[in-house]
Amino acid sequence: MASTFDYVHGYTTREAERLGDQARSVAALLHSDTRYPAGSLVLEAGCGTGEQTVTLARQSPNAKFISVDVSGGSLDAARAQVRAARFDNVVFAQTDIYVPPFAPATFDHVFVCFVLEHLSRPTEALTHLKRVLKPGGTITVFEGDHGSTYFHPDSPHARRAVQCLVDLQARAGGNSLIGRELYPLLTAAGFRNVKVSPRMVYVDSSRPELVEGFTKNTFTAMVEGVRERALAEHLIDEQTWQQGIADLYRTADPDGTFCYTFFKAVATR
Amino acid sequence: MASTFDYVHGYTTREAERLGDQARSVAALLHSDTRYPAGSLVLEAGCGTGEQTVTLARQSPNAKFISVDVSGGSLDAARAQVRAARFDNVVFAQTDIYVPPFAPATFDHVFVCFVLEHLSRPTEALTHLKRVLKPGGTITVFEGDHGSTYFHPDSPHARRAVQCLVDLQARAGGNSLIGRELYPLLTAAGFRNVKVSPRMVYVDSSRPELVEGFTKNTFTAMVEGVRERALAEHLIDEQTWQQGIADLYRTADPDGTFCYTFFKAVATR
Repeated sequence: MASTFDYVHGYTTREAERLGDQARSVAALLHSDTRYPAGSLVLEAGCGTGEQTVTLARQSPNAKFISVDVSGGSLDAARAQVRAARFDNVVFAQTDIYVPPFAPATFDHVFVCFVLEHLSRPTEALTHLKRVLKPGGTITVFEGDHGSTYFHPDSPHARRAVQCLVDLQARAGGNSLIGRELYPLLTAAGFRNVKVSPRMVYVDSSRPELVEGFTKNTFTAMVEGVRERALAEHLIDEQTWQQGIADLYRTADPDGTFCYTFFKAVATR
Repeated sequence: MASTFDYVHGYTTREAERLGDQARSVAALLHSDTRYPAGSLVLEAGCGTGEQTVTLARQSPNAKFISVDVSGGSLDAARAQVRAARFDNVVFAQTDIYVPPFAPATFDHVFVCFVLEHLSRPTEALTHLKRVLKPGGTITVFEGDHGSTYFHPDSPHARRAVQCLVDLQARAGGNSLIGRELYPLLTAAGFRNVKVSPRMVYVDSSRPELVEGFTKNTFTAMVEGVRERALAEHLIDEQTWQQGIADLYRTADPDGTFCYTFFKAVATR
């Protein structure tokens, strides 16, 4: 059972803060329509530091969640978040998403958020998750798609910096363009009734909370997080990188705009 | 007063059919929330062949529309469409969008759809339109953004073919990446209370009417329409072009997906 996981964004404190900003600034857009009936048993596969766990627990107070992750450190952070928010409907377990230690047809529903993008075999992971889901139960999957990023003013340097993130994730075996692919992935894993719902984040200066919370502190911070690796792997030169990051911040000016799309998919076993 | 207009898509019958497919497949997404009160006088600036005019007239039967275009041929087609649909609340006039022959503060509202992308001076056009709008009246602007296009399977050849359209429009003085720019454009033209609402078209094989009506017969047909000019101006070689178009059609297969975003903006004088 793999105990390490090549998480492209790393496990630093700034990354934890970034995830918090991301979760708060787009939580309503992504999760407001994700609710589970009272008494449901739901597997959250790949809970990370618990950003979505808290939202899940809040929105479905009478469902029971088993939230698993491969990283013990992330689970500690997730446990602390859920405890601080005083929810008692979540149980945590350290486990590999490819080897879920649960009997077939254990869960009423499965929830997977920002996980598949990091996996080299997403269809295999989905197939395992299908096995532990009851017939007729649903899987809900959220993923971003870095290829959905565009902004004003446009900048080839900024696009180049974003591409570093895409390339690094690909080198690590992941796929940061996976959002657009949820329909064929879920279909290939044997799910039925696949419904995809894109959630586009559009930011201009009339939405200051998204300028700060999303453009700067979520997306640009995420790109900045791979600086050392991008330079070390010679994906970009230092000058282009600096200009690219400056141009990303430039889109947060009063006449700038920023666009990014997350994808939600719901399907049935 | 300019009587010609370098419309990148041309004025052919296939282009007219393409516009019809586009209008029908995404009309609800774009226009279902565009309605004008009874008695309003609305300027539709750049009505083209009348695809949006029919929707406007249907959705606001008790408003009065003055629909103008620079092309007499397009106006004939628009007139025929409105007549066939038996609407009597539209008057047509041939005029240049930069020189609207109306007194200041004539209109309660202004509507502009898929026009600014073709103009070299969009802010100037908006300023002229503001002049003929009553204080407190609204302008509604729709534009696409070809940079919002992405698909599965991804293909550098297909992206290259799409880029030909972007480059040709830029050479003709237009800007096919203008959707993301509506907020700063309207602000720069002096409008207040600018609200932008992106309208993303997401297509997978569970939505067959969009596979046909949008992916194939709207978007890919639009790209195919610039084949001769793209080759003549050496923007692409014949083999890459053919592969690019084939790859765009490939996204309409059962495991393909296609994404494109239109932008609606509403602002107040």
